[in-house]
Amino acid sequence: MNKKITVSIIGATGYTGLELIRILNAHPYFEVKYLSSGSTAGKKISEVWPHLKGICDLELTNMDPKKIAEDSDCVFLALPNLESQKIAGELIGLSKIIDLSPDFRVKNIPLYEQYHHTKHLFPQCVKEFTYGVPELNKKEIIGASHIANPGCFAISVELALAPLKKRIKHVDVFSITGSSGSGKSLGEGTHHPVRNHNVKSYKIGVHQHIPEIIQTLGLEEGQLSFVPTSGPFVRGIQTTAFIELKKNMSASDALETYKKVYAACPFIRIKKEVQIAEVVGSNFCDISIVELNGKLIIQSVIDNLVKGASGTAIQNCNLMFGLPETEGLLSLSPLFP
Amino acid sequence: MNKKITVSIIGATGYTGLELIRILNAHPYFEVKYLSSGSTAGKKISEVWPHLKGICDLELTNMDPKKIAEDSDCVFLALPNLESQKIAGELIGLSKIIDLSPDFRVKNIPLYEQYHHTKHLFPQCVKEFTYGVPELNKKEIIGASHIANPGCFAISVELALAPLKKRIKHVDVFSITGSSGSGKSLGEGTHHPVRNHNVKSYKIGVHQHIPEIIQTLGLEEGQLSFVPTSGPFVRGIQTTAFIELKKNMSASDALETYKKVYAACPFIRIKKEVQIAEVVGSNFCDISIVELNGKLIIQSVIDNLVKGASGTAIQNCNLMFGLPETEGLLSLSPLFP
Amino acid sequence: MNKKITVSIIGATGYTGLELIRILNAHPYFEVKYLSSGSTAGKKISEVWPHLKGICDLELTNMDPKKIAEDSDCVFLALPNLESQKIAGELIGLSKIIDLSPDFRVKNIPLYEQYHHTKHLFPQCVKEFTYGVPELNKKEIIGASHIANPGCFAISVELALAPLKKRIKHVDVFSITGSSGSGKSLGEGTHHPVRNHNVKSYKIGVHQHIPEIIQTLGLEEGQLSFVPTSGPFVRGIQTTAFIELKKNMSASDALETYKKVYAACPFIRIKKEVQIAEVVGSNFCDISIVELNGKLIIQSVIDNLVKGASGTAIQNCNLMFGLPETEGLLSLSPLFP
Amino acid sequence: MNKKITVSIIGATGYTGLELIRILNAHPYFEVKYLSSGSTAGKKISEVWPHLKGICDLELTNMDPKKIAEDSDCVFLALPNLESQKIAGELIGLSKIIDLSPDFRVKNIPLYEQYHHTKHLFPQCVKEFTYGVPELNKKEIIGASHIANPGCFAISVELALAPLKKRIKHVDVFSITGSSGSGKSLGEGTHHPVRNHNVKSYKIGVHQHIPEIIQTLGLEEGQLSFVPTSGPFVRGIQTTAFIELKKNMSASDALETYKKVYAACPFIRIKKEVQIAEVVGSNFCDISIVELNGKLIIQSVIDNLVKGASGTAIQNCNLMFGLPETEGLLSLSPLFP
Repeated sequence: MNKKITVSIIGATGYTGLELIRILNAHPYFEVKYLSSGSTAGKKISEVWPHLKGICDLELTNMDPKKIAEDSDCVFLALPNLESQKIAGELIGLSKIIDLSPDFRVKNIPLYEQYHHTKHLFPQCVKEFTYGVPELNKKEIIGASHIANPGCFAISVELALAPLKKRIKHVDVFSITGSSGSGKSLGEGTHHPVRNHNVKSYKIGVHQHIPEIIQTLGLEEGQLSFVPTSGPFVRGIQTTAFIELKKNMSASDALETYKKVYAACPFIRIKKEVQIAEVVGSNFCDISIVELNGKLIIQSVIDNLVKGASGTAIQNCNLMFGLPETEGLLSLSPLFP
Repeated sequence: MNKKITVSIIGATGYTGLELIRILNAHPYFEVKYLSSGSTAGKKISEVWPHLKGICDLELTNMDPKKIAEDSDCVFLALPNLESQKIAGELIGLSKIIDLSPDFRVKNIPLYEQYHHTKHLFPQCVKEFTYGVPELNKKEIIGASHIANPGCFAISVELALAPLKKRIKHVDVFSITGSSGSGKSLGEGTHHPVRNHNVKSYKIGVHQHIPEIIQTLGLEEGQLSFVPTSGPFVRGIQTTAFIELKKNMSASDALETYKKVYAACPFIRIKKEVQIAEVVGSNFCDISIVELNGKLIIQSVIDNLVKGASGTAIQNCNLMFGLPETEGLLSLSPLFP
Repeated sequence: MNKKITVSIIGATGYTGLELIRILNAHPYFEVKYLSSGSTAGKKISEVWPHLKGICDLELTNMDPKKIAEDSDCVFLALPNLESQKIAGELIGLSKIIDLSPDFRVKNIPLYEQYHHTKHLFPQCVKEFTYGVPELNKKEIIGASHIANPGCFAISVELALAPLKKRIKHVDVFSITGSSGSGKSLGEGTHHPVRNHNVKSYKIGVHQHIPEIIQTLGLEEGQLSFVPTSGPFVRGIQTTAFIELKKNMSASDALETYKKVYAACPFIRIKKEVQIAEVVGSNFCDISIVELNGKLIIQSVIDNLVKGASGTAIQNCNLMFGLPETEGLLSLSPLFP
Repeated sequence: MNKKITVSIIGATGYTGLELIRILNAHPYFEVKYLSSGSTAGKKISEVWPHLKGICDLELTNMDPKKIAEDSDCVFLALPNLESQKIAGELIGLSKIIDLSPDFRVKNIPLYEQYHHTKHLFPQCVKEFTYGVPELNKKEIIGASHIANPGCFAISVELALAPLKKRIKHVDVFSITGSSGSGKSLGEGTHHPVRNHNVKSYKIGVHQHIPEIIQTLGLEEGQLSFVPTSGPFVRGIQTTAFIELKKNMSASDALETYKKVYAACPFIRIKKEVQIAEVVGSNFCDISIVELNGKLIIQSVIDNLVKGASGTAIQNCNLMFGLPETEGLLSLSPLFP
């Protein structure tokens, strides 16, 4: 490939924006064109985030998003909730778009609105976006122009359960996440003196990732009980699913099913045991399978900022531009220890 | 009370032994007589563990356990698994005994042996020990001479579920523990470079605390799916139980039930939300109740070394000697933040 | 002692206020009368900070501080910087006062103003306050009515260096603190995703504790180079002082000097090596002494919220009321591990 | 470059070996030939360290090191102390060698022996090795066949001080390191329940990196007081140097000097403030300069496993093979947050 593909990031100074920059820095074919950030425009990104000095010293812009899109092959929207929908509509058709916000993931608008406690501003645009989990709908993504990138908890649950789609009667899910999932905005939940040694569940049964999970897995709301939890670490999500199947399945049958479904998925690793430390910094999703008392217990671990956000976004981008999905991503080995 | 009650610790230099010393240091009526430790006898405990300098400077002894028991009103056995049973038999009748090991907790000897992968050396002594969860069998403990102190995971699950005893059809349990639960012995699982940012489940369905949990709750093995997990913190266990009841129960009915069962329990705090940071260093067990999709989701948090071990041991000891169960324990406020 | 001494806390919901409550909960003679907090008055403190449920369920008040003082034997001011001075003046003479803020510590008002970047509002009140480090000026404290409680970094440095007073030519100090020193207010520096694994120095040579350190040690500004640093933990300060003496001193002579100066100090523990983990939760200050290349290297460790704030405050309070300085404090054994 | 350069790692399963694999995985020109490990030979490295599954699945060998060298363009020795010297002698001349152990760093054999408490087995080989800090002796490295890769503390101190070489009268150094510096072997110092919240200095003035530091900087032992310290994090070293110069120097003069000395050094970033979080996972060494009370206070931060070990090793390797020193290394952006 001779010519670089130009990509821009709107919302470049948040954690998913920074993670896009980290990955793009190791990518052979994508070239960053614009980094946009309203509040810090005019500064170099490496002045705002000095870890980037020498890696990326681009000046932040607050250029009109439409201009940015016109000048780029692909735009990543790495904005807070509800901010994406304000501008995404105008960008449709100007460039490929990968939106990391939840605004265009859920087809059922009332469900989106119920879980986000808000009114969707541009519901008519939702159908323009393809929900992008490369392991589950690669073909659609290849042909798509606009991707709604999955939520971090959501993809960890979906990858853990997708091979059992249509067989699930009920599933209880416990997911524990690191603090980077809360982003760069300060909050009580990420105040170090308490978070440092705390474990706390929150939004049990009402978390905003529930709608996309049930949409992807073909479940009713009542079939999924989801307990999101915050843990005292920075990166990673461990998900544990206790699955009641419509018809029992042995561990070995389940294993075969998972191996088959994920046979062509370079970022899925099926292991006897999974642990967050083995995926930090990488785009892997590790999965383990146990059968116990007639239920399956499936666990998955991901890095919430990589497979749970920016890594999958690049993987989607690779596919949209006809590149191997692993391009630029397999060079990111887990940072261990 | 004019006269001090004399207590001794066999296995004083392990983490539960140290925690007993910490609590006894704040107790008005118990006086430490002997601290026993095979390997470091002759040294002061504060030489082995210098945080105790000025708090407890007793010399460690390797005196015959029988002599220790004869000279003490109560002996705490804070030994590793399988070590307690070797000496407990000889001490019966010499003094009151509180054993913090798993050796005398399980009445069903084959079940104990199956989960501990060993042969019980003195099965005939098991019946001499009362399983001691003060919130569940206070009367028995008051009259007991020998207590089998519950396991840390076990008590966290039992307190979360006991009010629903006989109503449980099936329960899926996810428990995450801090590293102090592994004790002072070095192991791969507590190597800081990895444990620092890791979450990992282990012994799914085969953990050695399962027998005592099902014994206490009157469950069959097949009714409990237990996923023990290690987290990147030092103190605390958070337990989440997804409970399928024989007959559905609303959250408010469940709340009433819990309030009633635990009405006279000063260390049980029923809260809307629970978090480990609110119990660290204290003997509290905080419990929350949510009803979702026809199941109850009950969470409990404890400090594994206090309510999960040495705090409950002192609470049991208080009861055995006719003291209020809170004596010396309510002065240990949670260390927050 | 038959009658309880009544104490109140103004600013009860900050971290030093909470720590006062934790210690007072274990104190046999002090009884909490009022807990005052502007923003949350009317609520129980245990609603604001649920870890206190069952430990302290007093209702927070926003009563006039003068009324609080009139009704109390002693008032603790646990307010943010610059807030204390606004009310302390009015309280003088109404009750004993222990102020945990920096406002009345520094006799040299211009120096205070220079380091705090502000104008002192009530400079005339400063002389009414005795700087309270019990190990250094116990007699003065016993006779005092108003105490300026030392800063956390300050006391860690002062206790490390005081025995060498008048012999110091120059001292370079590196101190690293846990995040609880920043209090409950959210800030970039305590955002968990970064603080979790970060070490960062700040305010090198310009930290606001410098004036009280040089005042206590009789140094000129130019004789102390102070490098405060934030570390990825919650509680504790480790201070390392590289000391150039006017006249060299061997390690053994230094050891003798320290032992002599601190002979009657129950919270000073001189050790071969010191570590933060051995003092967390306790009022101890551990000190080690090394001689190297003609300089002394003295290290001290404290819990910043105990010896560095509320523990010393209670110790001062004990002395002011004729109690042993250890009263209620030695029952707080370090929380180890 | 058409042909890959083949490199092998002896001692591949330790932390520096793993870090070499992580970096080599992102390197365009180096190809791993053999991974050698005595104890686990025959297994795939990804079975021993499952985070590598899909990244590196080579089988571990225990082949004769000489054979390995004969078949490789370069051999990395990532062995524990004292193990390298046993085999390095035999490999000289067979391939290029980069030794990550301390065995060949120090020209003054008695000094090495004194600080390592051992007798050097092959002192005659030491002169065959070039001490490799690319920022300080790039030319020598380019021409070298055998490199002694610097110690982690050592390079953090050397890079902080090298521009002041010959001007230093005395320097006091405080360095704090993460736990990964202790390697994969279990030890009391890396037991999570204590390390998690501890800060502890050790080997004050006697640490084994002192000889290479004074050798590089041209100091006498008495001119350097070194206080190594362990902190509660995994990756990173922060070094603080309090420097007494022979002749005073302003901060701005120092800044100019550093900028000049490091003008052609892509991994040195001179900043107003430095923090560990900004270098984790990368090969950068960030440096800050403050002048205070007539001394310079220089701080540096590195990732101990990258710039402090395997990153510098690859940088050296790049130079030895005529590649740009940044090859494969600038794609490793810091993992932030």
